[in-house]
Amino acid sequence: MSAKTRMGMIGGSLDGFIGSVHRMAAVLDGTIELVCGAFSSNASRSIETGKTLHLAENRIYASFEEMITKEAQLPADIRMQFVSIVTPNHLHAQPATLALKNGFHVLCEKPLAFSFDEAKQLGAHVKETGLLFGVTHTYTGYPMVKEAKNLVASGKLGVIRKVIVEYPQGWLSDAIESSGQKQASWRTDPSQAGISCCVGDIGTHAENLVEYITGLKIMELSADVSSFVAGRKLDDDANILLRFDNGAKGVLIASQIANGEENELKIRVYGEHGGLEWLQSEPNTLIVKQNDQPKQLRRAGVNHSYLSAHARLHCRIPGGHPEGYIEAMANLYRNFAASVQAFENKTAQNPLLDYPTIDDGIRGMKFIETVIASGKENAAWKQL
Amino acid sequence: MSAKTRMGMIGGSLDGFIGSVHRMAAVLDGTIELVCGAFSSNASRSIETGKTLHLAENRIYASFEEMITKEAQLPADIRMQFVSIVTPNHLHAQPATLALKNGFHVLCEKPLAFSFDEAKQLGAHVKETGLLFGVTHTYTGYPMVKEAKNLVASGKLGVIRKVIVEYPQGWLSDAIESSGQKQASWRTDPSQAGISCCVGDIGTHAENLVEYITGLKIMELSADVSSFVAGRKLDDDANILLRFDNGAKGVLIASQIANGEENELKIRVYGEHGGLEWLQSEPNTLIVKQNDQPKQLRRAGVNHSYLSAHARLHCRIPGGHPEGYIEAMANLYRNFAASVQAFENKTAQNPLLDYPTIDDGIRGMKFIETVIASGKENAAWKQL
Amino acid sequence: MSAKTRMGMIGGSLDGFIGSVHRMAAVLDGTIELVCGAFSSNASRSIETGKTLHLAENRIYASFEEMITKEAQLPADIRMQFVSIVTPNHLHAQPATLALKNGFHVLCEKPLAFSFDEAKQLGAHVKETGLLFGVTHTYTGYPMVKEAKNLVASGKLGVIRKVIVEYPQGWLSDAIESSGQKQASWRTDPSQAGISCCVGDIGTHAENLVEYITGLKIMELSADVSSFVAGRKLDDDANILLRFDNGAKGVLIASQIANGEENELKIRVYGEHGGLEWLQSEPNTLIVKQNDQPKQLRRAGVNHSYLSAHARLHCRIPGGHPEGYIEAMANLYRNFAASVQAFENKTAQNPLLDYPTIDDGIRGMKFIETVIASGKENAAWKQL
Amino acid sequence: MSAKTRMGMIGGSLDGFIGSVHRMAAVLDGTIELVCGAFSSNASRSIETGKTLHLAENRIYASFEEMITKEAQLPADIRMQFVSIVTPNHLHAQPATLALKNGFHVLCEKPLAFSFDEAKQLGAHVKETGLLFGVTHTYTGYPMVKEAKNLVASGKLGVIRKVIVEYPQGWLSDAIESSGQKQASWRTDPSQAGISCCVGDIGTHAENLVEYITGLKIMELSADVSSFVAGRKLDDDANILLRFDNGAKGVLIASQIANGEENELKIRVYGEHGGLEWLQSEPNTLIVKQNDQPKQLRRAGVNHSYLSAHARLHCRIPGGHPEGYIEAMANLYRNFAASVQAFENKTAQNPLLDYPTIDDGIRGMKFIETVIASGKENAAWKQL
Repeated sequence: MSAKTRMGMIGGSLDGFIGSVHRMAAVLDGTIELVCGAFSSNASRSIETGKTLHLAENRIYASFEEMITKEAQLPADIRMQFVSIVTPNHLHAQPATLALKNGFHVLCEKPLAFSFDEAKQLGAHVKETGLLFGVTHTYTGYPMVKEAKNLVASGKLGVIRKVIVEYPQGWLSDAIESSGQKQASWRTDPSQAGISCCVGDIGTHAENLVEYITGLKIMELSADVSSFVAGRKLDDDANILLRFDNGAKGVLIASQIANGEENELKIRVYGEHGGLEWLQSEPNTLIVKQNDQPKQLRRAGVNHSYLSAHARLHCRIPGGHPEGYIEAMANLYRNFAASVQAFENKTAQNPLLDYPTIDDGIRGMKFIETVIASGKENAAWKQL
Repeated sequence: MSAKTRMGMIGGSLDGFIGSVHRMAAVLDGTIELVCGAFSSNASRSIETGKTLHLAENRIYASFEEMITKEAQLPADIRMQFVSIVTPNHLHAQPATLALKNGFHVLCEKPLAFSFDEAKQLGAHVKETGLLFGVTHTYTGYPMVKEAKNLVASGKLGVIRKVIVEYPQGWLSDAIESSGQKQASWRTDPSQAGISCCVGDIGTHAENLVEYITGLKIMELSADVSSFVAGRKLDDDANILLRFDNGAKGVLIASQIANGEENELKIRVYGEHGGLEWLQSEPNTLIVKQNDQPKQLRRAGVNHSYLSAHARLHCRIPGGHPEGYIEAMANLYRNFAASVQAFENKTAQNPLLDYPTIDDGIRGMKFIETVIASGKENAAWKQL
Repeated sequence: MSAKTRMGMIGGSLDGFIGSVHRMAAVLDGTIELVCGAFSSNASRSIETGKTLHLAENRIYASFEEMITKEAQLPADIRMQFVSIVTPNHLHAQPATLALKNGFHVLCEKPLAFSFDEAKQLGAHVKETGLLFGVTHTYTGYPMVKEAKNLVASGKLGVIRKVIVEYPQGWLSDAIESSGQKQASWRTDPSQAGISCCVGDIGTHAENLVEYITGLKIMELSADVSSFVAGRKLDDDANILLRFDNGAKGVLIASQIANGEENELKIRVYGEHGGLEWLQSEPNTLIVKQNDQPKQLRRAGVNHSYLSAHARLHCRIPGGHPEGYIEAMANLYRNFAASVQAFENKTAQNPLLDYPTIDDGIRGMKFIETVIASGKENAAWKQL
Repeated sequence: MSAKTRMGMIGGSLDGFIGSVHRMAAVLDGTIELVCGAFSSNASRSIETGKTLHLAENRIYASFEEMITKEAQLPADIRMQFVSIVTPNHLHAQPATLALKNGFHVLCEKPLAFSFDEAKQLGAHVKETGLLFGVTHTYTGYPMVKEAKNLVASGKLGVIRKVIVEYPQGWLSDAIESSGQKQASWRTDPSQAGISCCVGDIGTHAENLVEYITGLKIMELSADVSSFVAGRKLDDDANILLRFDNGAKGVLIASQIANGEENELKIRVYGEHGGLEWLQSEPNTLIVKQNDQPKQLRRAGVNHSYLSAHARLHCRIPGGHPEGYIEAMANLYRNFAASVQAFENKTAQNPLLDYPTIDDGIRGMKFIETVIASGKENAAWKQL
């Protein structure tokens, strides 16, 4: 039996919450071990974080450059095998590129990069090195999203005609960035987030989800992009018309000013013969609909034999014991670690243990740029 | 105590279902009596319907012309006071105009007319006669829609920023019009329905609902209009970007090919300080949301003192005894009949006993034409 | 075509709300006409009510005795055909008996009588006269309750093993009877309500519903009966263990002190092969469950071909247009009126147009007495 | 910074699923390290499990006796600090006792022991040693259960009057134990499970939950206990009347033959001034109800300032990112480990970091014996 897959982390100091979510997800299944980290550009904060996490002191680094360089010099069975990057958008490409150059696989937060150009360059590096690159579009890790994808692929819904995907949040209804709320500050700052706040932060999740489930590509879009809060430099709301490569049409709604909404990512897909609905805040249910048939509630559960193998592989416990967001992210980590093992052992990887790749990340960046461009031209249609 | 308000009906023979729904709504509260009808252009079917409804034989007419003419000759305390028109779209304006000319108030099915031009002419007739004219946009009759309107008007949500209104149905997923389904046949026939099927039949309900609740006007729109079913002459789906007169933005989705959906009219409104959500298929609940507050479920019920007077006036029974679609339509009938009584008695009408008027009907027709025009120009922005 | 069925009403003055609910239900389908009434023991209030309802003045009576006697002297095609009794419990048997003696069918509010003895005597009268007698256990009038009954009868759930039926309300959490709330006052007054408040008012609905849906009889029960509010003379809460004639077991919970609950009558039935769930406050959905199968949501709708004929006969409109409590009660009225017509025309009545009968009413009274007796003996088992 | 708390595990080989759930819960927060295990009474299976879990080979043991003995001989900063026992009921007391005797704290699956007597003896050992002893009544680990407890304690609901707690499952509707299903086999086998299947396995969870949230004690109960499946030796269903020490009354329903139900643990509590409702399968919502007030949906989320400190301490991520069963169990592990650290460091433990103790475990065993005794005497009332 091989050892656990060894992970390093860039970003994710104790001040924020995203680092701890990733760490919980990483260790949940017992297949990954956090062995090192450069948790902050502030060296003392990085060290404090690493100590709190019980890391060996010589594996806590003051910068990602130091970490990547020094880890690369460690023996092959000691050094980290992949790096998880959980920094803000503008700090993805540089460490990712350096990691790839030094032979480390990369799992990176979304959106992939600061700009589409940067993303394409990163994609080229990935291609050159042949290493693995994952992007944490967490929502595709849910079992019932896998089930939805399989349901569409089975043809049971017929040719897809219409998609409604929405991601309403309310947390940026006020200018909380001006009072120093950390999550809000970097997301609304063009120098850290890039050209978009709302579309980049949550619109890309919706875009990724809809293409993942339907297997279709958004061919063109028309986006009405807004910034409702006075003084905000980036968008906090977008309403987008979608057209898909098979002739299907749809709507993508993303908002951070939907006051009172938590995190209500929801997708509905309608085909010639039926429809489906999934809501992230009640993730263990997939609603399947057909004209003149009772609606069906398919439920996550490792014991539910009526589910697809793909969905069941991403459940941990029997039905009725709810699994949530951390488990969905843990599915990405587990699958990525399994791919790392398969890569290093030169064995075949079970294709059902999938995760979002560099291509998803690049497409997300293209989506952002296309949406913002459309928004600047009064919602003109733009090819994607 | 005055007698019941006397109603005649045009259209609504026993073959269809819409006539019986209107009749149930009309009589529910015991304030309206159906005294005559021209239920079909087929005279024998009209007579059969009237007999089944226990009408006096001399008040069952072979045509609307006959009914209007003959009723006008009856004594003032015998003849009908208003006419309810429940025919397909192309048969609204002619009987309505004739009724107005003969001094009868009119309550008319939506959409108001066959075209925007025809609607404007009808509006001119209404203005000339000074008579009452209602349009059965039934959904604004629900108590919790009244509550929603009052909540927005109270300012509790702050300035409205975003609206999502959707009306998905699945019943036209197949070309059922070609197998003679009566409801589908006329709605998809340009000679009976006009220039639109989906937008006219359900899109206008969504438009009416959103303007009613928010008190805002849609200022411009960009509509992606589709006809998914092969051979269908009119639209069966539309995705529409909305911009409102106060700067708010929104999305309106209407579909008849959302396979598996029944009649899921839903609206969400978000302001600076909170949001609301209402779903027609569970109409007795209004969800009120605010960042960092528990969601509130306001519930219909004549006994709920926390509701607005407007909402309570449109409830009949205590909370927990669900009221439905027929009751919502009955609210329109009751209010319209009360207005007729007030008109004839020259007394003041309680403004809370409201109903959609000719102006709502005309605006609906303008909405249809604007959406279809935008759709034909690749979703170009159009003023409304 | 025969005329509408003619109804008289006893009780139901404008002060209360129950009279108007019955009247709305009676007229909804256009098959019943209210022709006379003795709406209150207070003659002037009765007259005022009748005038408001637009009744002919000579058909508004000062007492039920007067009404029954005088109506009996009217010509057969003029006089009322049945009487609807909507008075408090202690005023059911006397008018019902007099009506039967004078040849009138009776539709009576529940619980049937003041006591089990009185109920049995009434039953004997019904048997002697051979006339029709209905009891308004309204909840069995819902389409999806019919569907539930048919589902059990179909055998699809297998032999029934377990039932949970509950009826929580909160409106009597405080001693509102002492501040003169009318509904509370008579229900908590032993001289008007009989030996029980909670069990009589809502427990009997639960009992009737469970026997209707399952087709089983409660064989014995053990009841823990409480009166939580200080000074209250009758029960306001009961927890009851049930044993059925086929060996099934169950629980019946009724409460009027479940603070915050409106009217949440709910039933769950489990058999060897599956289960069902129905909730009155969302009455248009029946949930069907089976181990290792997706849950099914069957939905009311006259157009849903997957529903039983029994259920569809009790829907008025297509799915997605919610029908509610008034429509459920209207189903009882419609079916009872159809039975009256069939009785008088000596034709066969469609057995699917069913309604609760005198036997249901008598059983309800036996249930009340049995529960209260068990409660007085520390929840001793009692045969039913 | 101190190191992670070191845990050993007894039971939980790879064949079952419960071991892996405990391990995921233990490591989620990064405060516990699994250092050793005796995963099966089958030595080779234990070794295989330990290797798969990447344990050091010399810390994988063939029996719990070996593990406890050998670990006790290791240096204090190496040896396990507590043991987690996840074996069937009959294998709790022996290893727990041995662990205590050797100075190890114990976290034990529920129900605590094979019998009430055995539980009391175990309690005496705990008392003698002064060591920490937790019992994994997982459901009290959910944030919104903490919120419910705090809501009751705040007095906002007033004096509690009524409780309904239910735990329906359907998985034992058929005699799956006779076809060798492992989970079913031991639970229905008196030599492994003790005197009860349903009451012991899930009824105790309901009992623990209701006493935890309300702070009340069940004073007496009357239980109708059944075994519906032919050939089954232990109970698979129970309906129980409850009376509490403050005069409140209630119902506890537990079933493993509620065909189609997954794991629907639900509790409703009603006081003089309001009520609450919580459902395990949608655990992130607590419904708070009051007469004539909108229902409130309180939602889990580390960022929700309206929640009690107790609830927020048991959330990991912002609202709208659902946390589930594993996180609830992780809260028990985290809190227990923190208590172990505080114990060893002789520091004070935050009382909000609570977990079910030996007393809860003993009470659960008393509950089981009392229920089964009542069941055998035709639901006679028994003191608890």
